Amino acid sequence: MSQAQAEPEHGVTVVFVELPNTKVELLEPLGEKSPIAAFLEKNPSGGIHHMCFEVEDIMTARDRMIRQGARVLGEGEPKIGAHGKPVLFLHPKDFCGTLVELEQV
Amino acid sequence: MSQAQAEPEHGVTVVFVELPNTKVELLEPLGEKSPIAAFLEKNPSGGIHHMCFEVEDIMTARDRMIRQGARVLGEGEPKIGAHGKPVLFLHPKDFCGTLVELEQV
Repeated sequence: MSQAQAEPEHGVTVVFVELPNTKVELLEPLGEKSPIAAFLEKNPSGGIHHMCFEVEDIMTARDRMIRQGARVLGEGEPKIGAHGKPVLFLHPKDFCGTLVELEQV
Repeated sequence: MSQAQAEPEHGVTVVFVELPNTKVELLEPLGEKSPIAAFLEKNPSGGIHHMCFEVEDIMTARDRMIRQGARVLGEGEPKIGAHGKPVLFLHPKDFCGTLVELEQV
């Protein structure tokens, strides 16, 4: 388990729990405009916020998702995520209510 | 991606999406008393229902969780899950709102 890591640009504090084949990211809102504040209002006890899939090339993966009808959140361009790698998010309505993150490894 | 598989004892129809290091389980209610019906009422667009962690010995894992204060759902004894292996569920209130399944591999 990692130390708590403040990510002011992302409005969260994170702790990573490393498992042999995956990683659990614990998230806590940071600051007044945290992007996870609305989630906690809707789910006061907490919950599973999103799933992240690692991809080799985020632009290829993004364009493939778009061709299949998925919407990219925000400007549609990758940002640098908590691991210092490019990430983007796909619209939950296009994935049966699941917020999906893609991260380039 | 697997074929859809009816699991009448569990009240769900499942499809498994196999990834190199994990598996995504798509769930649909089956029958009138499906245990996931309430989840869909609360989340009409769908959502992430639970996370499953594989363990080597489910009784050891269960007792360790209990010692740490987690509650086991139901009778507290493992049942046979969709993969034909022993599973049990832990109370979401003890995991920040996340329903946790343990599966013996």
